[in-house]
Parts: sequence; structure tokens; C-alpha cells
Amino acid sequence: MKVVTGEFGYILQDVPHLADYIPDLPTYPNPLRSNPAYSVVKQYFVDMDDSVPQKIVVHRDTPRGVHFRRAGPRQKVCFASEEVNACIVTCGGLCPGLNTVIREIVHSLDYMYGVSEVLGIDGGYRGFYSKNTIPLTPKTVDDIHKRGGTIIGTSRGGHDTMKIVDSIQDRGINQVYIIGGDGTQKGAAVIYEEIRKRGLKVAVAGIPKTIDNDILVIDKSFGFDTAVEEAQRAINAAHVEAQSAENGIGVVKLMGRYCGFIAMYATLASRDVDCCLIPESPFYLEGQGGLFEYIEKTLKENGHMVIVIAEGAGQELLAAKDEQDASGNKLLQDVGLWISQKIKDHFSKQGKLPITLKYIDPTYMIRAIPSNASDNVYCTLLAQSAVHGAMAGYTGFISGLVNGRHTYIPLNRITEGQNKVVITDRMWARLLSSTNQPSFVETKDLNDDDVRKDDAPPTQMLDDAGSSGDGITGNNNTITK
Amino acid sequence: MKVVTGEFGYILQDVPHLADYIPDLPTYPNPLRSNPAYSVVKQYFVDMDDSVPQKIVVHRDTPRGVHFRRAGPRQKVCFASEEVNACIVTCGGLCPGLNTVIREIVHSLDYMYGVSEVLGIDGGYRGFYSKNTIPLTPKTVDDIHKRGGTIIGTSRGGHDTMKIVDSIQDRGINQVYIIGGDGTQKGAAVIYEEIRKRGLKVAVAGIPKTIDNDILVIDKSFGFDTAVEEAQRAINAAHVEAQSAENGIGVVKLMGRYCGFIAMYATLASRDVDCCLIPESPFYLEGQGGLFEYIEKTLKENGHMVIVIAEGAGQELLAAKDEQDASGNKLLQDVGLWISQKIKDHFSKQGKLPITLKYIDPTYMIRAIPSNASDNVYCTLLAQSAVHGAMAGYTGFISGLVNGRHTYIPLNRITEGQNKVVITDRMWARLLSSTNQPSFVETKDLNDDDVRKDDAPPTQMLDDAGSSGDGITGNNNTITK
Amino acid sequence: MKVVTGEFGYILQDVPHLADYIPDLPTYPNPLRSNPAYSVVKQYFVDMDDSVPQKIVVHRDTPRGVHFRRAGPRQKVCFASEEVNACIVTCGGLCPGLNTVIREIVHSLDYMYGVSEVLGIDGGYRGFYSKNTIPLTPKTVDDIHKRGGTIIGTSRGGHDTMKIVDSIQDRGINQVYIIGGDGTQKGAAVIYEEIRKRGLKVAVAGIPKTIDNDILVIDKSFGFDTAVEEAQRAINAAHVEAQSAENGIGVVKLMGRYCGFIAMYATLASRDVDCCLIPESPFYLEGQGGLFEYIEKTLKENGHMVIVIAEGAGQELLAAKDEQDASGNKLLQDVGLWISQKIKDHFSKQGKLPITLKYIDPTYMIRAIPSNASDNVYCTLLAQSAVHGAMAGYTGFISGLVNGRHTYIPLNRITEGQNKVVITDRMWARLLSSTNQPSFVETKDLNDDDVRKDDAPPTQMLDDAGSSGDGITGNNNTITK
Amino acid sequence: MKVVTGEFGYILQDVPHLADYIPDLPTYPNPLRSNPAYSVVKQYFVDMDDSVPQKIVVHRDTPRGVHFRRAGPRQKVCFASEEVNACIVTCGGLCPGLNTVIREIVHSLDYMYGVSEVLGIDGGYRGFYSKNTIPLTPKTVDDIHKRGGTIIGTSRGGHDTMKIVDSIQDRGINQVYIIGGDGTQKGAAVIYEEIRKRGLKVAVAGIPKTIDNDILVIDKSFGFDTAVEEAQRAINAAHVEAQSAENGIGVVKLMGRYCGFIAMYATLASRDVDCCLIPESPFYLEGQGGLFEYIEKTLKENGHMVIVIAEGAGQELLAAKDEQDASGNKLLQDVGLWISQKIKDHFSKQGKLPITLKYIDPTYMIRAIPSNASDNVYCTLLAQSAVHGAMAGYTGFISGLVNGRHTYIPLNRITEGQNKVVITDRMWARLLSSTNQPSFVETKDLNDDDVRKDDAPPTQMLDDAGSSGDGITGNNNTITK
Repeated sequence: MKVVTGEFGYILQDVPHLADYIPDLPTYPNPLRSNPAYSVVKQYFVDMDDSVPQKIVVHRDTPRGVHFRRAGPRQKVCFASEEVNACIVTCGGLCPGLNTVIREIVHSLDYMYGVSEVLGIDGGYRGFYSKNTIPLTPKTVDDIHKRGGTIIGTSRGGHDTMKIVDSIQDRGINQVYIIGGDGTQKGAAVIYEEIRKRGLKVAVAGIPKTIDNDILVIDKSFGFDTAVEEAQRAINAAHVEAQSAENGIGVVKLMGRYCGFIAMYATLASRDVDCCLIPESPFYLEGQGGLFEYIEKTLKENGHMVIVIAEGAGQELLAAKDEQDASGNKLLQDVGLWISQKIKDHFSKQGKLPITLKYIDPTYMIRAIPSNASDNVYCTLLAQSAVHGAMAGYTGFISGLVNGRHTYIPLNRITEGQNKVVITDRMWARLLSSTNQPSFVETKDLNDDDVRKDDAPPTQMLDDAGSSGDGITGNNNTITK
Repeated sequence: MKVVTGEFGYILQDVPHLADYIPDLPTYPNPLRSNPAYSVVKQYFVDMDDSVPQKIVVHRDTPRGVHFRRAGPRQKVCFASEEVNACIVTCGGLCPGLNTVIREIVHSLDYMYGVSEVLGIDGGYRGFYSKNTIPLTPKTVDDIHKRGGTIIGTSRGGHDTMKIVDSIQDRGINQVYIIGGDGTQKGAAVIYEEIRKRGLKVAVAGIPKTIDNDILVIDKSFGFDTAVEEAQRAINAAHVEAQSAENGIGVVKLMGRYCGFIAMYATLASRDVDCCLIPESPFYLEGQGGLFEYIEKTLKENGHMVIVIAEGAGQELLAAKDEQDASGNKLLQDVGLWISQKIKDHFSKQGKLPITLKYIDPTYMIRAIPSNASDNVYCTLLAQSAVHGAMAGYTGFISGLVNGRHTYIPLNRITEGQNKVVITDRMWARLLSSTNQPSFVETKDLNDDDVRKDDAPPTQMLDDAGSSGDGITGNNNTITK
Repeated sequence: MKVVTGEFGYILQDVPHLADYIPDLPTYPNPLRSNPAYSVVKQYFVDMDDSVPQKIVVHRDTPRGVHFRRAGPRQKVCFASEEVNACIVTCGGLCPGLNTVIREIVHSLDYMYGVSEVLGIDGGYRGFYSKNTIPLTPKTVDDIHKRGGTIIGTSRGGHDTMKIVDSIQDRGINQVYIIGGDGTQKGAAVIYEEIRKRGLKVAVAGIPKTIDNDILVIDKSFGFDTAVEEAQRAINAAHVEAQSAENGIGVVKLMGRYCGFIAMYATLASRDVDCCLIPESPFYLEGQGGLFEYIEKTLKENGHMVIVIAEGAGQELLAAKDEQDASGNKLLQDVGLWISQKIKDHFSKQGKLPITLKYIDPTYMIRAIPSNASDNVYCTLLAQSAVHGAMAGYTGFISGLVNGRHTYIPLNRITEGQNKVVITDRMWARLLSSTNQPSFVETKDLNDDDVRKDDAPPTQMLDDAGSSGDGITGNNNTITK
Repeated sequence: MKVVTGEFGYILQDVPHLADYIPDLPTYPNPLRSNPAYSVVKQYFVDMDDSVPQKIVVHRDTPRGVHFRRAGPRQKVCFASEEVNACIVTCGGLCPGLNTVIREIVHSLDYMYGVSEVLGIDGGYRGFYSKNTIPLTPKTVDDIHKRGGTIIGTSRGGHDTMKIVDSIQDRGINQVYIIGGDGTQKGAAVIYEEIRKRGLKVAVAGIPKTIDNDILVIDKSFGFDTAVEEAQRAINAAHVEAQSAENGIGVVKLMGRYCGFIAMYATLASRDVDCCLIPESPFYLEGQGGLFEYIEKTLKENGHMVIVIAEGAGQELLAAKDEQDASGNKLLQDVGLWISQKIKDHFSKQGKLPITLKYIDPTYMIRAIPSNASDNVYCTLLAQSAVHGAMAGYTGFISGLVNGRHTYIPLNRITEGQNKVVITDRMWARLLSSTNQPSFVETKDLNDDDVRKDDAPPTQMLDDAGSSGDGITGNNNTITK
């Protein structure tokens, strides 16, 4: 990793640049200089030295810590407009905003940089070598931000890096925009390495896509806001069903394979949820302090209850099956169906409290909608930042929001682990306080948690990451490996 | 202002505390210590030294600059639970989220701090002395976040500070939560001063409310996201009307008396807008580079167009009337009706291009809706922060988001001026680039703008505030006075 | 059944009246006569002879056929205002509009007839004898139409008619409003018979509730419009998911145990559906003209497809399990999961066409929402009609819409069978034409369908019930038993 | 008018047919006979003798009265598929569903009848002679039902019938589909007469479009449901604004130049409205029983109120200006602004009750949205009926819903007057009862209203048109001229 250090503990974790391995790389004046929209903006171009700190809850004597390079247009670019041959690929599951990102990459390349050659790769990574490309023009993408999904298709599953780089080389592509999650960005890192090995003048720019918000370092992923908003419909329906039946229980499964951000925020936004179960917080069903006891208590007090469960929660309780999906993700059993059955069985066996349980899985209805206004603006800036970065010759980076500022982050920084809800943090405490659910953990279990001691603000969103005097120098996210 | 300084240019602009003027103020252990939801959170309490920098786009050698105190619960509080007698007042126009803030103050006081006495002041400041109070309990406010408006009523207009403080004193109120905009917070500052002068143990906490996002220092105001989202409906309608008529023009007026944030973000989110007019960017109608010329050109090219105009835009063009509304705001003429008439007159007089113009004013339909999920979570945290602050004995502060972190900001910092769209900044350049509208400004006009030189990141939202090497130490917002 | 006949084949299928078995029933002037809102309405009271024909597609020489009594206020009522002690019960699954019906019964009784005693029976039929009643006042029900579900709770399952009538007698209830589906109204018929046997002055009025629209005679059931509207979200999501994947298939299961109205109308309204499967139209998977063949063909042509399946479709194909739910309905297996698995298995076994299938079950998200404006008005009129009828002394009837007119229909007319989509009718032909799906039936199979020959307009909604010269005298719906 | 009579008072008001003036018109077998979707439908084709009665609230001895010809496909058509050259024109203001109707005409002509030549006339009637036509194919119109507005444009204003018929003749058009309101259909009648005079084989089919529901004979117009639904947003906003202010008044103006159906139904659906003012019910401001008195009373009782006013209400109170818009409609002054000012002036002058009034005009936001599911299905059937009729050689007709059945109605039947809310009818009484507003009329004023005596069911929607024994033979709507 390229690192720059400075006074008072300043560290810049820099991103790679084509000039790192291509000698005598020519540069050109940025065409934006003559764009009328930009000509009145005095400080339009980002200063080469601008950087953004990762950690901003500080003390008077805290060292300055890790910084990232600020995103934005540079005075000089490394590609001539007519030389650029860009492509865009989307991988993994759907997420609100995919089409907006595609649209804005195409528009930015064309309107800002005069680039007219942009190709869509059809159906994810494998499309590089198994399918025809889809030509993308400002006109063809003009209205796509009002539609859900991705117009260039997506897929999960394995791919052949060599064939992809061959295809990039053969087709003369020199800017690759890769929109995808954790696994996809790991693939992007390998593609970047291979391109670098071959010495190609090809910029690789990632735009992290994860409806679950499980990507390290960045504040939040695009589509997350839209997903939390749309999840309210399912929670409302569960609430109405539960209220209308005697001892009614509404169970809603929300996205979140390894992290419970959507479940947590949807619960906090709704206030109709009595219990929120997430992967980060193990729970148990039977006995004192267990889920069944809590359900029984809640039904007796209120006559109904609503449970939100993230898809990855409680997997340790399900009979272990060691399968993987096409992307290599562990194949999770449907925890929503499982827990619904468990609850029904328990109360049926117990025989004292006849319950009515309704289970709602809104997953596809959430992820297939178009992005809301806030995500639309966010996607626009992410896409523009990626284009500015690639034009400026940066590569092997993702475009990401850090403390509300757009930055370039080295690809390998975000593939080290996954962002998770920290259950010893204030945001989770707020949730517990709002639902009154049991914590399912013993305080003593946490006392020896030395690993956590050096950790620091783990939740990037809307702040309030916990911090303490002795933990300030840590990383911003939990690193799982 | 209380200021703490530190190494490498560190400055903390601190907020007042009751102990500043009340000697021997007793403290109590925070009741959250025994709350089960919080007991597992190791680092729940905010370290007394935590602070958040205002400026985070930095260089290797940038001094650390202004910081604000981090919000959150303290180990010690200055009020015993049974001693607290809190009140909440809402002033000014409606804004999505008001009820959520009220709900969360009541819930936080009760569930976190065991406070059962919370009063609503009926109908704004004047309600302190002219009306009965409204008792607020967790039960009565339980569902109000699903409704627009404010359940305790609001009003504009003058008030008598002495009578308010008399009423506070007479009723034995010792925590005052004031939800309102610019003018309201100026009033709060005066109330705080009077309380201090009288030596009362009364904490004054402001929660800034401004649908326009015109408040200094903070990232964005609550309700803003919801407003931008809802504005899309009006823009879509204007687009459909314009498209369906020959030379159809759709004009949408959006909120924004002195700043164009809603108009700018709604335009960026929609992409159907051809021209966005805001107070910060003066425009002219006639002649070269004027609005009429641009309309004519757009109609000839596309056959239709959509114009978004902030309510405060172009006021200098309207015949000056020197009136004020009850809050002392300058009474603005309806610029939407005015510009619609001007455009109709121009093309009717000109006689060559018969136009069809439809004017939409969605103001009340936007501000009266409930807040969306994202604003709901935001309002919750703002309210909780305010309660933590007041319980800890801070006073004369507002609860505000700075770089995504919740902080306490001295009241007088936000009443110095107003947050504005900086039209020499990148966000406005993006807008110009997306609409292709004329900039209405001459580059040369801006060259001597020395004031701007020292300014820095003016737009707080979603980053990308412009910055430059020589401007890094400046304030975050335009100070108008 | 009480029948009145007249010239030219006129038949009136009348509803029972308390006077049928209670001699010397006193009558009172209708209090509406002095209501200011009604005093200006000249022809407010329904003429005793008003009736509405069931069959209105006629020829010059068609006999006039079956008529129903027109609903509405009568000059004379059989209850004094202060004498009335009404109760409302809701049974079966949720349906948009339940709360509106409850609200309007309470409001009508109070504001129109000065009745202040209205009780809600808690949780369905069994609540009559196993629970306390819920007092309902105009104030407590004032806002409930904006919420989904039913505020008085509902349940499925058996009940004891004797205990119910005992409870009615013991509590002195004399008007019983029963909101529920097919099974519930059969129960209502038995309750009415028992009341009649005991000679009680108790009016029994049913309001048919069936989100599936499976009730005979009436044009459509309340909540149906809302359900079809809300189903569009699920279909849109399925469409987006299908379009974004290679050989993507979106499967949406919609309500409809024995009839496919929601599936059919949702398909016609959306236009994104390629195949609609309903209980009335048996289909097969394998071989020529089968579903798999059609899927393969559609994927090859379009690359994706959307399938809508009613919950009761294809039950004959599922392994027979002879179970029943608590209401005695045959327990259906989840056909959506079943068909999704069958399709996946087929294409996986076949191995040539790798598909991606997404299954969406929006059932609870549809039925738990509040009714839309159109259903709100409809529910209001249904409720008012029921109240007018009960006050006038009619009993053993339902309030129902026939050819757009509100009528009173004898309870036993609607319990004879179920309304179904007639697949030899034009509406189904329209659907086939819009989706291009195979009909799965052989023309010859239908030729000997003698039963159908005498049938007539089977689809009540929005017309276009097929009719023919020789079939005009038939009933309006398929009678299954 | 072609009239067929029959036994027991049967009257068929028939529509013109090309064979009426073209001798020896050839016929062809309907191509639907060989369409697979229709081949299984036994009774698909409409019997030539099918008709639908206009009046269906009847007595045992009521004569059968006026009937209309039932819509639907005929065994024989008068155009060969390859011969057809159809065009579609949309006139007047926007209405939800326009694009659905266009789409379905194109699809029906192509998929059912094999017609590939369909032209859109650009921008209303004048487009026939002043603009190029727009080719319409099933593919180009495939998604348009999801968008508001009309893709072929519309306009108001005068046109030259001769030039239109010249253009029809010159371009070889032989089917003209005219979508528009009252004035447009009057124009259609004149065009039909001219075509008939010239002896052209050109079928003229009208599809009535009026968001106001002011067209005679038909049950309701398309887009009406959607409009009532969308109006709820504005009413909700007005309610929230009114509730949040002291003596808050929310005023909502809704569409309805000459009739108050949207205002009436939106009020009945919402239940938050305290006063609904419509053109049919004159009102007065001052004095006993006047609006001001009622406002004062309501504010004193409830602290706030919501007023809905149809755009044509109270025009007699506004200072008379005798202007007309381009379509020849009387130019109405904005009654919403007017009444808002009047109310403000009154209470300001009176000085006792300081009010806060918010005025909302959602007109364009309502009419520009896409049609909801229910309107989508309705538009589909209207369009299909029109196509079936034109193919069968009928002309000079509109496609309209009568008592829930699709029929063909002679053009001149609907241009005789306008549909209006009858304020002596039960639906209006229901509204008065739900709002408790004063009736503004004296009972005695109505006593001598002899004209009404012979009138009958005036409100087509959702029934409950008042009727009486002595008024049964009358027409279904008020005939104003």
C-alpha cells in the first residue's frame, strides 16, 4: 500500500496510479476547464494534497491517524477523451440505485469528459467473455434511474480472471467500472493486479454495492436508505396482522447475511418492532432470557408482537448445512421460515397460549425498487467521483463516502473484512432500549473481550460510533480476518 | 464563547454549562448505568474529551482547527430524575419530523432518565404565557411519528422573552427544548441569556428545524431528505404536463427563502429539470444569456421544459415591497406566480412561440407529510442527544450533526448567519452541468470576490464542498453578517 | 325464500323481515326525516317497490328475471333509537376496508339514527361467548379507516351457534352486523335461523368480506380494488428481478383460494405478466402445450418472464393432503413455493437453460393495508345500507352491490356456491390474449360442457360477462353445489 | 337517432352504422375467430340483439325504458385487416389513463385484428392539418401506461372541421378514435356528420375523457378513481396544516368546472373535510347559515377545519368576467384564491378570531399521474370496446360504461348536457351528513322544483341514485339544455 506520513501522526493510505507502473505516462489538461458549467467555479479542481481523516472523534492530543485521498476532478487527466474506451459491469444481487450509477457514469464520461465509447458488460463478470457488449449512450440511459434493477443484467458466481483481462485487452478497453459487493470487489482487486502485471494502461474503479451495508470503511452503501424506507411497508403489514389477531405475531425477514444494519435501522425508524434479531447478536430460544420467554411476556402484556430478523441471524442455531451459492457465499437456510416454525411449534406444544403467526419476506420487493431521491443524489456523486478518479489515472480504488466526504480508497482496504453492527456500541443499545428486548448476552461474557478494546467507532452511519479515551487509535470497522 | 485550545492548532468551541454560573452544582450518577439495554455496552458513555472537527478536508500540514463537543450521555448528570420538569416548544413552519423529535424527547426522558414530567407548550413561544400546557407522556406520543405536523401546535410571530422566562420560573420548568429555525434559535439564545442572568438552574437545548437547510455549521436539517423526496412528485407532474403540450413549460416552486438547497437537490435527484433558479444565483430575464433566451432555445430543441424555482429566488427582480411576516421574515412575493406571468407575457407579446405553462406549488403538500425512515432515525438521534446534553447540565446549545457525528454547538455559532448554496462550488457546477442552464454570471464578476477566497467547504451535505490549498482554515459556512 | 312475481317474467327474491315471525311489530317514523342533511332531499326514502334486476344484458324479448330489493332508508323503522343495542363482529382473514365498514356502521347508527349503544365483538364469532365486548363510539372509531386490519380483532375457526345466540339474548343485543366471507355468512344464516326459531326481535345483517371476490351475486367485494392495486408492487418487483438476470423468472403468488379474480385483474392492470395461473383453469407442466414448454419459449424470445399464480391454482397437481384450517377451509399447500421448485428442478435437470427464479409472496403486505379512496366510499355505502336495512326490520340479508346498485340479498342466495372466473368467458380470453399464454385446454373438452350452456354472465366486475341468445335466463354466477 | 322499440316499453337508442349510408358494404369474418385465445371461449361474440337498460332501479310494473347496444366483438366486421388505417387523437386537459387508452387501441387493433397502421395525431384536433403524424406500434406504446400524460400531446382550442375531414380523406384514414371531453365529443359529432355527408367509409369512435366525471349517461369516466385517490394527499396535507396551527384552516381546490363529483367523492373518502363546496350547490358567505358563520362555529368547537372547493363552485359570487379559454370554456377565476382571501379578510376585519389559512391547489399533481390499477383495467376495456365497434362498422358512437356494462352510445346522447351532482339526491345528503356543513338551501326553495320531479337517478357512480315511484321513466342525468 502506498502510504504518506506527516506531522502529528498523519497517515495517508493512498490509491495506486497508472504512473506507478507505466513510465512516462502522458497527461492532458482536464476538459472540464473549458466547460461553461465549471468555468465560474473558482475552486473546482481538487487540490492534490486534499485528504479526509477516517477517524474524526478526537481528543485534544489525539494523533491525526489514517486519511484517504479526496475524490474529485484533477487539473490534469491521463486519458485523452477520444482515447477512452470504458466499460461498466454489475455483479451480485439487485440493489436500488444500480441504474442511477450506470446512468451517471455514462453521462459523466460524455458530458464532462467528451467520452463517447461506453460499453455495458452483459450479466456480470462472465459477460466479459461469454456475451456481446451493450452499447451505452447518454440517450439510452437517460430514464433508467426511474427503474429498479440493472439494465445491463447481473449474475452471481465464479469467473475466470484471465479471460476477463484478455477480453479487456482484446477489446481495447481502458477504463473498467465495477459495481458490486464484497466478493465482486475482491475479484476487482485480482483483475487490477493482473492488469498491472501485464502493464496495461487500464484504470480499474470499483463502486461498492451492498444493500446490507456490510462494506468496510465507507459511511454507508447506496440503496441502503431506500431499503430501510421500503422495509417499513413490511413492518407495518406485520404490525397490522399481529394487532388484528389474538396473540398475533408478525415476523419480517430483512436482508443482511452477515450484518444487521437494515434490520437495526428499519426497527429504529418504525418503532412498531418488539424484537430485532441480527447476525452479530447471538440469541437463544429456550429458557430464561430466551426468545420464547420474551415472546410470552410480550403477548401477555400487549396481546401482539412484531419480530424483525435479518436473514443471517441465528444461523448457528440452524442445522448446519455446508453449502455455498454460486458466488461462494455460504448458503443460508431461510431463517424466517425456520424461526416461524420454531415459534409455532413451541406454543403449540406448550398449549397454553394459542398464537397466530404471519411471516413476511419482502426481500425482492425491497431490492427491486428504484432508488429514492437521497440515494439518487448519492449514486450520482459516487459515479462522478469514480469517473474523475479513472480519468486522473487512479486505479485499483473504490469511490466511497468517508465521514460525508467522497474519497478514493485502496481496493484492498475494503476487502479485509466486513462492516458489522457492534453490539457493544451505543446504536445497538438504543435499539435494545427502544424494543425492550433482552440482550441475550451476559455482561461478564464481554468483559474479557480484549479484541474490542482497541476497536473504535464501528458504525459509520449517522454517527454515534462509540469511542473511548483508550480506544481512539483503532480502526473504524471490525476486521474479521 | 468558551474555547479550549490544543496542539497543532486544535480549537474547541465549547458550549455553556449550568456550572458556569451556578456554584456547587450537585451531580448524580447517570441512571443509564443501571439500564439493562446499556449495561452490556462497554463504551457507552462519551469521554469528556471527545470532540469533532468542523473541517475535515485537510492537508498533511493543515492545523487542526475548530472542533465541537461530541454529543452523548455522560457518566454524571446534573439533574435527579424526579427533579426534572421539562417542556417542549415548536415554532415556525411545519417540517417533516417535528412529531418524531417530540416523541423521542419524551421517550428518552422517560425510558432513559426516568423523567415523567414533560409538558408541551401550545402553539409556539407565545404559548408559554397565553395558553395551558399539554401534558406529554410516552403513551400519548407513541404513534405521533406517523403523522405530519406537530401535535403541540406552532406559530410564527413576536414573543416576550421576559414573560417566557417568568413562566418558566413560575411553573418550575428546568429543561427547555426549543425546536425551530434561525429566528427561533435567536430567541432561544436570548431566553438562555435571561435565564443565566437570573441564575436559574434551567437547561436550554435547541433542536434546529429548517426544511430549507439554511442553518449554519450543521450537515443538514431534519426533514430535508423527506422534502427532497416528496418534491419529486411535483417535478414529475410538471414534466408530464410539459411533455403533453406543445411548447409546454412546467414551473415548480419549492421551499427556500434564502437558500436553494431543496431546489438544487430535488433537481439533481430528478434529472427532468431544465432550469433551477435559487436565491444565491441572481438571474435575469431579458437579453443574451437571460432566462427567456434559454427557454426559447430549450423549447425549440426539446419541445418542452421544466423550471424549478426556490421561493426566495429572483426577489431582487420583483417590485420591492418592504413587508414582513409575523416572524419578522421579509414578506416575499410569490415568485412562482410572478415568473409564470412574466414568461407568459413575454411569449405572448413576442407572438412567435405559443406556449402552455403550468405552475405547481407543492409547498404545503411537502411540509405536512410524516418524515421518511431516514429522517425518523435522524430525528431520534437529535432528540436523544439533546436530552443527554440537558441532563448533563449543558445549556445554550443546539444538538447538531457535524461531519456525520452528533455534537453540541453553541447557540450563538448558528445565529451568526445562514447556510447557503455556494455558487462557485462544485455542487452547483454539477447542477449547471446536469441542466445545461446558463450560469447567469460572468466569470469576471467573481474574480475579485476576495471574501470567498478564505471561505471553505460551504456545502455540508453529502460532501464535496469545494476546498483549496489556500482556503483550508476557513469556516464551514457563509457568514452573512 | 320470499318471492314476488310480476309481469313479463319479473321475479323479486325478497329478504326476510322481523314482521315475518313477530306479529304486531311496532313501527316508528324514520328519524332521518328530521335530520337537516336529509330534509332538503326530496326523494330520500327508498320506495318500497324499488328493485334491481340481476341480469341486465337483455334482448328485446327477454323476460325480466330475478330482482333484488333496493337498499336504502325506509319511511318507517322497526326500532326506536334508544331501544337499539347493536354489535359488530369481523371474522376470517384481513381485508382492506374492514375498519372503514366498522367505522361507518357506528357513525351511521349514531349520526343517522341516534343509536349510542354499539359493541364490538372481540376476535370473531367465538368472542360472543369467550371475551368481553369492546364499546364502540363515533369518537373511538373516528380515525380507524386510515389503518389496516380490524380494531376489534378477527379469527378463523369453529364456533357454537347456540352459545352465540344465548349471548345475543343475554346481552339484549338486537342488531347483529356480521362482516365476513363465505363461511362466515353461512354461519350468519344459521344464527339467523336460530334467532327466528326463538322468535327474537334481532336483525341479522351480513356485509360480505372477501378479498378474493369469491362471493356470489354481488358485483365485487370491498378491498378488491385496493388488493389489485397493491399487487402491482409485487409484479413490478418480479419484473425487475426477472429482467436483471439471465433467463430470469419472477413468480408472484396472489390471493385466491378458489377463484382467480385478483390474479386476473392484477395481470390485466400490469401488462408485465407473461403467464397467469388460476384455480379455475387447470394447467399441466410437462409436454406439448404445458407450462415448461411455454416458459422455455418465452425465455428464448424475451430473456425473462413473470408468472402470477393464485394460491388455489394447480392444487390438483400437488400431492394431496387432506387437511383443513381452523375455519374448515381445505388447507392448501403453498403452490408458489411448489411451482418455483418444480420449475427450478425441471430446468436444472434439463440442463440446457440455466434460469434464475425469484419468488415473491406479497399476501400479508396486500391485505394489511388501509383501503384506498374508492374502497373507502364503497365500504361507507355498504355499511350505511346494512344499517338502513336492519333499522327497517330486514334480517337474514346481506348488503351487496348488484349492477352498481346497493341491494339486500337473502343470505342463502350467496351461500349456495362461489363466484368464479369463467374461463370460457371474454374476460379470460382478454387475459389470454394479453399474456399470449397457452390456454391449457382443448376446445373439444369444452364442447360437451352442457352445464355451462345455461349459464350466463359470470363475471360481475366491470362487465363484459359473456352472454348469448340462448343463455339469458340463467343465474349470474356459477353455482358449485 | 335510430330507435328500436319492443314489448313492455323497451326502447333501444341505437348507434349509426356505416351501412346506414354506404350501400352494399362488404363484411368479413371476424379474425378473432381464429385467435387461439378466443377459440376456447364459447360465447365470445356479442349477440346482435344484446342491449343494456339505462334505468335499472325498477318496480314490478315499470316499463323497460331506454337501452343501449352492448359493446363487444361481432361475428362479422366491415373492414379487412389490411385495409384499416386508424388514427388516434387526444384533446383537452390531461387525465390519468390517456396513455393506457392509446396503448390498448394500438394493441387491440394489432393483436386482435391484425391492423398494423395506426397513427397518432400530434397535439389534438389541430394536429390533423398542422403537424406530422406519429406512427404508433405495439412496441412503441408498450410501456406508456406507466407514465402520466399523453404521448401524442394534446391541446385546447378551436379547430376547422373541414380541414380535419379533408386530412382524414387525403391520408386515407378510415378509423378515427377521439379521446376527449364534452367539447371534444361535440366536435366528433360534427366530424362524423361531415364524413357521413361526404359518404366516406370512415368510422368515428369517441372515448369520453373527463376527469370531472361530467359526461352524461355513462357510469363514470376513466381517471376519476385515480383522481379521487390522489386528492387524498392534498386533503391530508391541509388537515395536518390546519391541526398544527391555532384556528388553522386548510383550503383545497379540486377539479370540477361544472360538477362537484371529485370534490364530493374525495370528501366522502377522506372524512377529514368539514365543508365541501361544489358548483351545483350555491352557497353564501355572510349572515345566518352562511359559510363564515359555519367556519367560526367549527373553529370554536374543533380549533381547525378543512374546506374542499371544486374549481367551479361559487362562480356566481365572483365578480363576473366574461372570458373564455381556448376551448371556449368560460374562463373561471381561481375560486380557491378568491375564497381564501375572502375568509382571511372576514376574520381579519372581524378581529376576534385570528386564523391561519393554508391554500393547496393540487390540480396538476393529480391529473398528471399514471392511472391506478382499477383505471388501467377500465381503460383497457373502453379501448377494446371502441375497437370492436369501429371494426364492426359502427360510427358516431362513444364507448361507455352503463350500469357496469360496456355499451355503444350515440354521440348526440352525451352532448345534450352535462352530468351533475344532484343536491336533492341521497349521495349529497350523505356528504352533508358526514361533514355537518349547512345545506345553504332552504327546503321551501326546492318545493316547487317541478323539473326535478320527473328526474331520476342522477348519480351513476356506486349507485344510490335516488328514485321514486313517480319518477322512474326519466332520464338518468340532468339535461342542462
